[in-house]
Amino acid sequence: MHPALRSRIRGYGYEVFMKEMIDDTDENRKKIVQFVAQEVKNDGKIPHFTREAVEEIIREAKRKAGMRDKMTLRFRELGGLIRASGDLALERGHRYVTAKDVLAGKKSARTLEQQIGDVYLDRKKEYNILVTSGGRVGRVNGLAVIGEGGTVLPIVAEVAPAQSKSSAEIMATGKLGEIAKEAVTNVSALFKKISGKDISRHDIHIQFLQTYEGVEGDSASVSVAVAVISAIEHIEVRQDVAMTGSLTVRGEVLPVGGVTQKIEAAIEAGIKEVIVPYSNIKDVLLEKKYQGKITITPAKTLIDVLKHSLIKGDKIVEKMRELID
Amino acid sequence: MHPALRSRIRGYGYEVFMKEMIDDTDENRKKIVQFVAQEVKNDGKIPHFTREAVEEIIREAKRKAGMRDKMTLRFRELGGLIRASGDLALERGHRYVTAKDVLAGKKSARTLEQQIGDVYLDRKKEYNILVTSGGRVGRVNGLAVIGEGGTVLPIVAEVAPAQSKSSAEIMATGKLGEIAKEAVTNVSALFKKISGKDISRHDIHIQFLQTYEGVEGDSASVSVAVAVISAIEHIEVRQDVAMTGSLTVRGEVLPVGGVTQKIEAAIEAGIKEVIVPYSNIKDVLLEKKYQGKITITPAKTLIDVLKHSLIKGDKIVEKMRELID
Amino acid sequence: MHPALRSRIRGYGYEVFMKEMIDDTDENRKKIVQFVAQEVKNDGKIPHFTREAVEEIIREAKRKAGMRDKMTLRFRELGGLIRASGDLALERGHRYVTAKDVLAGKKSARTLEQQIGDVYLDRKKEYNILVTSGGRVGRVNGLAVIGEGGTVLPIVAEVAPAQSKSSAEIMATGKLGEIAKEAVTNVSALFKKISGKDISRHDIHIQFLQTYEGVEGDSASVSVAVAVISAIEHIEVRQDVAMTGSLTVRGEVLPVGGVTQKIEAAIEAGIKEVIVPYSNIKDVLLEKKYQGKITITPAKTLIDVLKHSLIKGDKIVEKMRELID
Amino acid sequence: MHPALRSRIRGYGYEVFMKEMIDDTDENRKKIVQFVAQEVKNDGKIPHFTREAVEEIIREAKRKAGMRDKMTLRFRELGGLIRASGDLALERGHRYVTAKDVLAGKKSARTLEQQIGDVYLDRKKEYNILVTSGGRVGRVNGLAVIGEGGTVLPIVAEVAPAQSKSSAEIMATGKLGEIAKEAVTNVSALFKKISGKDISRHDIHIQFLQTYEGVEGDSASVSVAVAVISAIEHIEVRQDVAMTGSLTVRGEVLPVGGVTQKIEAAIEAGIKEVIVPYSNIKDVLLEKKYQGKITITPAKTLIDVLKHSLIKGDKIVEKMRELID
Amino acid sequence: MHPALRSRIRGYGYEVFMKEMIDDTDENRKKIVQFVAQEVKNDGKIPHFTREAVEEIIREAKRKAGMRDKMTLRFRELGGLIRASGDLALERGHRYVTAKDVLAGKKSARTLEQQIGDVYLDRKKEYNILVTSGGRVGRVNGLAVIGEGGTVLPIVAEVAPAQSKSSAEIMATGKLGEIAKEAVTNVSALFKKISGKDISRHDIHIQFLQTYEGVEGDSASVSVAVAVISAIEHIEVRQDVAMTGSLTVRGEVLPVGGVTQKIEAAIEAGIKEVIVPYSNIKDVLLEKKYQGKITITPAKTLIDVLKHSLIKGDKIVEKMRELID
Amino acid sequence: MHPALRSRIRGYGYEVFMKEMIDDTDENRKKIVQFVAQEVKNDGKIPHFTREAVEEIIREAKRKAGMRDKMTLRFRELGGLIRASGDLALERGHRYVTAKDVLAGKKSARTLEQQIGDVYLDRKKEYNILVTSGGRVGRVNGLAVIGEGGTVLPIVAEVAPAQSKSSAEIMATGKLGEIAKEAVTNVSALFKKISGKDISRHDIHIQFLQTYEGVEGDSASVSVAVAVISAIEHIEVRQDVAMTGSLTVRGEVLPVGGVTQKIEAAIEAGIKEVIVPYSNIKDVLLEKKYQGKITITPAKTLIDVLKHSLIKGDKIVEKMRELID
Repeated sequence: MHPALRSRIRGYGYEVFMKEMIDDTDENRKKIVQFVAQEVKNDGKIPHFTREAVEEIIREAKRKAGMRDKMTLRFRELGGLIRASGDLALERGHRYVTAKDVLAGKKSARTLEQQIGDVYLDRKKEYNILVTSGGRVGRVNGLAVIGEGGTVLPIVAEVAPAQSKSSAEIMATGKLGEIAKEAVTNVSALFKKISGKDISRHDIHIQFLQTYEGVEGDSASVSVAVAVISAIEHIEVRQDVAMTGSLTVRGEVLPVGGVTQKIEAAIEAGIKEVIVPYSNIKDVLLEKKYQGKITITPAKTLIDVLKHSLIKGDKIVEKMRELID
Repeated sequence: MHPALRSRIRGYGYEVFMKEMIDDTDENRKKIVQFVAQEVKNDGKIPHFTREAVEEIIREAKRKAGMRDKMTLRFRELGGLIRASGDLALERGHRYVTAKDVLAGKKSARTLEQQIGDVYLDRKKEYNILVTSGGRVGRVNGLAVIGEGGTVLPIVAEVAPAQSKSSAEIMATGKLGEIAKEAVTNVSALFKKISGKDISRHDIHIQFLQTYEGVEGDSASVSVAVAVISAIEHIEVRQDVAMTGSLTVRGEVLPVGGVTQKIEAAIEAGIKEVIVPYSNIKDVLLEKKYQGKITITPAKTLIDVLKHSLIKGDKIVEKMRELID
Repeated sequence: MHPALRSRIRGYGYEVFMKEMIDDTDENRKKIVQFVAQEVKNDGKIPHFTREAVEEIIREAKRKAGMRDKMTLRFRELGGLIRASGDLALERGHRYVTAKDVLAGKKSARTLEQQIGDVYLDRKKEYNILVTSGGRVGRVNGLAVIGEGGTVLPIVAEVAPAQSKSSAEIMATGKLGEIAKEAVTNVSALFKKISGKDISRHDIHIQFLQTYEGVEGDSASVSVAVAVISAIEHIEVRQDVAMTGSLTVRGEVLPVGGVTQKIEAAIEAGIKEVIVPYSNIKDVLLEKKYQGKITITPAKTLIDVLKHSLIKGDKIVEKMRELID
Repeated sequence: MHPALRSRIRGYGYEVFMKEMIDDTDENRKKIVQFVAQEVKNDGKIPHFTREAVEEIIREAKRKAGMRDKMTLRFRELGGLIRASGDLALERGHRYVTAKDVLAGKKSARTLEQQIGDVYLDRKKEYNILVTSGGRVGRVNGLAVIGEGGTVLPIVAEVAPAQSKSSAEIMATGKLGEIAKEAVTNVSALFKKISGKDISRHDIHIQFLQTYEGVEGDSASVSVAVAVISAIEHIEVRQDVAMTGSLTVRGEVLPVGGVTQKIEAAIEAGIKEVIVPYSNIKDVLLEKKYQGKITITPAKTLIDVLKHSLIKGDKIVEKMRELID
Repeated sequence: MHPALRSRIRGYGYEVFMKEMIDDTDENRKKIVQFVAQEVKNDGKIPHFTREAVEEIIREAKRKAGMRDKMTLRFRELGGLIRASGDLALERGHRYVTAKDVLAGKKSARTLEQQIGDVYLDRKKEYNILVTSGGRVGRVNGLAVIGEGGTVLPIVAEVAPAQSKSSAEIMATGKLGEIAKEAVTNVSALFKKISGKDISRHDIHIQFLQTYEGVEGDSASVSVAVAVISAIEHIEVRQDVAMTGSLTVRGEVLPVGGVTQKIEAAIEAGIKEVIVPYSNIKDVLLEKKYQGKITITPAKTLIDVLKHSLIKGDKIVEKMRELID
Repeated sequence: MHPALRSRIRGYGYEVFMKEMIDDTDENRKKIVQFVAQEVKNDGKIPHFTREAVEEIIREAKRKAGMRDKMTLRFRELGGLIRASGDLALERGHRYVTAKDVLAGKKSARTLEQQIGDVYLDRKKEYNILVTSGGRVGRVNGLAVIGEGGTVLPIVAEVAPAQSKSSAEIMATGKLGEIAKEAVTNVSALFKKISGKDISRHDIHIQFLQTYEGVEGDSASVSVAVAVISAIEHIEVRQDVAMTGSLTVRGEVLPVGGVTQKIEAAIEAGIKEVIVPYSNIKDVLLEKKYQGKITITPAKTLIDVLKHSLIKGDKIVEKMRELID
């Protein structure tokens, strides 16, 4: 099996994207135009691209960047799209590669890595791992990036009597990477405040469901916070909501990467509302077919997240407001 | 000795199978037909396959996938089966390889790895390690995959006075891999709830019997949960029942891999009933000779598992229902 | 010095033997006959073997397997025996290699590894490390495999006031391998039950005497259990008894490897009775000279072991019976 | 993407600079003059440098050293500047490379590494991670070096009920390197004194925001101290202030590296006042465009830092004075 | 400097010697005679050895073995002695190498490794690290092997108020190897019994003086036991006594390696009495010049050791007798 | 930058020097004379050395040894000095290399490593890290070796309320190596005795200032002891005193390496008195220009060290005397 498929589920922050993007300037757009021409020339068989087709390539470069006014630097992936679109145009007997060819090419050029996200999602739905309606205590639909696509990553929390008479343990499973573990540590500052002194009498269990290849990054912070607070307070979480976002120890929501892919995955899974960091709103660049299919709710603090995800959560929102404002 | 025999016992989740399967589509079936033809050609000596023989090869490809509507990608193993079947047809003087030749070939093509599962099972029966009738406190017949076959993996639990005056320890032995250890951590949330505050006064011992090469994966979660709850509550577990299934920290049963192989192994061991995750039911694809030989009980939550495995367990089932519903 | 001598003392379970054995079938016996013939041919000088001589080789193949109805796969070692027997026959001017030549060859073919077991035993006797008569508190004669031979491995336990006011420590020394450490953990479930709440006020020290190269496996479990229970209860252990056996956390005795070699070593050391797992009884295949020289006592549970090893242990046997039955 | 971009954020002490600098002596200045001549000769195309241009190169060598009366030894970087300035002079048709060409060259010669600092800063501003006005409890603008430039590194602290009934934990996240972790340990001596016995009842959380590549060095010590003291005492920190400095366990401020770059980064971020170690004041060598743009406050002890960064912090300054004087 | 000098101080048990020795049989003596002849032949210049000279070589082979009725297998070292003796005979114009030449050769053939022991000893005396008269609380002269020679290894113990209110720590410094650490653990069983419940209120510090290259083995066990018991009970230890011996957790003294070298080192250091394991007495094979220069006291249990090493230790000996008999 | 500059600060004990020295015998002096002649011959250009010049070389060999009656084995370094002196003699037109040339050569031959010690010292003075007058609580001027030269290494200690209600922590920062950490452990025995039971209520912080490359060895033991005792007792330490010395857990001062270099560094830093181990006094071999510039105080026990370093420390000296005598 292709080793590329051994991808870790990534709920990473912004830094990865940072390193693979350039500004969306006229100069850089020209570079992409040149790159398209060169690929056509190198290939030798595929026809030239129309202006609209090139525009579509640039649009994809922007989508892949994941940040407004930026374009991806991963030209190798763009190259795959260019060739796939060209081949389609040839098949269709087009004299030029059109925007439609590029859109169609996008699907056939989906890499092995992208397909994993789909398979995971399929499986989760088929095997009842995903819940997308009603309310559940201690269960949250997180969002993650896997390969190049997004996926819904359910997180379940439970509170149990402490093994130790004097001290609580916080146990997070799912093969978490270093940053993901630190994120849980940061989030614990918030639910310890909700619990108060009582915290020492209970163990907190946090489970990332079926993440056998591991979890990286800190973008599940808000999901973990909501799942644990729900479990502590026995308040239901809306299952038609999914969410992504990093958190400070004082409850501010920080930006994350891959919001576009994550939102598209949420739509595919049947989610009705996504909560994303306020400062990421401008990075959302949905494919046409996904536009208008979901409510996108920006959040500046954990308060905003709790308000939109808890069922009958007014009291706990009020309590949290006092603690972190 | 062949290094392949150094296989770890795997009670793994679904992910491994995920990566080695393709959809059961007409297109992919055609690929297998072509693959059979090519193997026949490469070999040079074995005769062509009848349509029914090829159907049998495809059926095996589906069995190996372990998931409904999927076929295995491990063509190398199929190749072994094709050659073994062809050789048998030659021996029998058949002009074409028939479905019967393939069924017979399946047995002779069992790899070294598959044979281990058999040997382990033989040994466990001969050396009284397996118990398959009556009731026992703290002892559960788990199910695992070893090499390419299934096996019954007994798990024993005991509760002892805590070494520490203030804190319980949960000790699981059997050279557990990372995911298996995390699974024990997740399961502990459930038995801590059964125990209540009392948990801190006892150490919990969990032993995977004679797994000298180690245990991977989280499909033993339900077995561990039942063994420990039985030990805590001094309630007997049915020994004619075997079980497999992953668990969330809130008691939901999640799907696992290899259910077909596991059920066949349970039958070989003399088990009368197997409990499997509800969402895995559709993946069961028993060989004809095993069909109807065992009761297959689907479980959605730990409640279902306890109901079918405990003897006189009504009270504890009721208690657990209150705790996890 | 030959690196082979750097062998670890192994008190291992059954798995090692498992991997190096084949069934004792007519077909496999034929293979050994062929192997003997081939070795004779390859050597070019040694004479052919009589039917009885070949039988003796097969008997050795069975002894080495360590499991009834199995034969060893370690043909290289058999080859050494064949050549040594042939050389002896030549020296003695025999026209054929006889069964007696093979028996004599067995001694001269003892590998370097086998010799170590002897040396260790010699040293232990000469240096008063072994005690083989009378009764001692906290001291048990365990049995282990070293190289290809057996040896007596004394284990000493002591109970001391706990370093910590609130928690006991269990400390086992002797460079224990992973499985050996897990075995001590499993055994601790049993002596914690004997101790009751009192366990937290004492540290338990367990010492494998002079095992500078390390100890592997779990076959010392019963020895550790008896030594610690003796130390806790101030009851003497019979020093003319030696024992081997793995244990579950609930006190059942599980089979181990190498019982034949271990029993022969016990006889050499002057031990009068050995306790072995009930399911291993059928694996005992002593050389003629050792037959009838020792009482072999089978044990199904720790109760059986305690009954035969403690002096005036009735009360503690009764107490343990209540705890693990 | 260029691996050089995978730079860790460094808030390091003085040692790095130490190793890469020589005295600012006439002899060493001559070496730089010779180096410029040699680079011109090696290049073959760029014109000679005027005396003023060489002076500007020397000035840059001093800036890069980061310590008064020292010059950098990193000639490879200077070489880049020389060639960039030469190319500019050629473009502009200059017969000699002038001081202005060098100043212009400095910008175009900014290495990839330098650009990262800019990008990080841009992102932090755009994504609301930076706060540069008003007051906040538990939030401090630290200063760090990233690549060859400076950056503002926000640090957030929070105090929460302790997980353990008897002991506090101090948890710092952000992938801290060894020296950075030791710095937090040292700083803890100071906030434990502020807390008094009460310290054992609370967990202290310290978060370096979005430092996915890790943090090295001890120059964030003062920032951590101020953030934690602010969180403990519920006193606001001025957000228009940024700070850098190492600390002894008794509250003395020790010198750090990179003060010039850090101050310039603070100016770029909109900070109004920077607090730097008293003994580093002489190392500040701002580019002309930054001169006079920010208040530079020297600090000898933590008292000085608290005085300039806390809003209504008189009481706590008084308390700290009693504790560390 | 020669890497051989980087030797660890070894206070090891018997196992090392075990592996490098053969039986002192006529057959093996013949092998040494042949080896001498061969070395003479290979060298080409040195004369033949008289029977007495060869006897002296054999005697050295026995001394190096360190165990009665055994001879060393380290022929390479014997080769050095043969050549050195031959060269001396040549220098002296002898026609044959005589026993006296061999005795003289022994000194000049001392390897670099042997010389280290001397240097360490010199240094310890010159720098007042060794104390060889009077009585001291918590200080014991241990004996160790360094390179091929022995050395005196002072061990100092101290009892201090425990850092923790509820638990004692036992801290041993001197870069101890794994077996050495386990030896300290074993010994702790004994001094915890002397201390009783009180043990939890004090930390025990054990320091192997100036062993910068580390300490291996368990032969310092008796020294550590005496040093700690002396420190706990405020009883002086005789400084004109040195000791070596391994210990069981129940106070029995087990044999160790290198007793001859250790005793010779003790004599060189000015020690008046050495305590060695009872079962090692037969291994002592002092050079003529050392014979009768020291009292050699055998010990079967820790009681024997305490009797001969403590000043006014009757009470503590009595107490220990009750605890370990 | 030259990797040699990445030297760790070493406060090591005697062992390093031990391995790199030979006896100061006539024979060895002859070897140095021959070495000088050979270097002159190999070089081909530099003139012969006068007897006085050779004497100066020998004197340097003794200084480098660091131990009376020993000479260094590091001939490579001596070679550098010989060539440097020869070159100077040539420059000066001397016919022979004179003692003065050697003295001058010593300065120019200072290796890169030696220069680091100077730079560190410069920096510490310039950046106010060093304090060399007056009294300070919890601050001690230690002495260390860096490269081939000495340096002053300030150590700061502080006592803070314990994080844990029941247990003290001792935290030492500065990237300590294994021996350095063990030294802190040993020293803790002494300050725990001073504190008494009270020790469990406070955390002890020990900081080696700005030792970014790490600290090795145990020669800072006395400095750590004095710094912590000063912090516990709120007694000032004289800042015009520096000290070096290893310690036993019972307060005896043990010898260390590099005393000559350390004392010279102390003089350069403006220190007025150095405390060195009594047994090292004979190793001091100051360059003429340093002779008489500092008071050298020998110490046999920690009492001696405290007497000369504390201001108004009579009471604490008395208390310590009772505890360790």
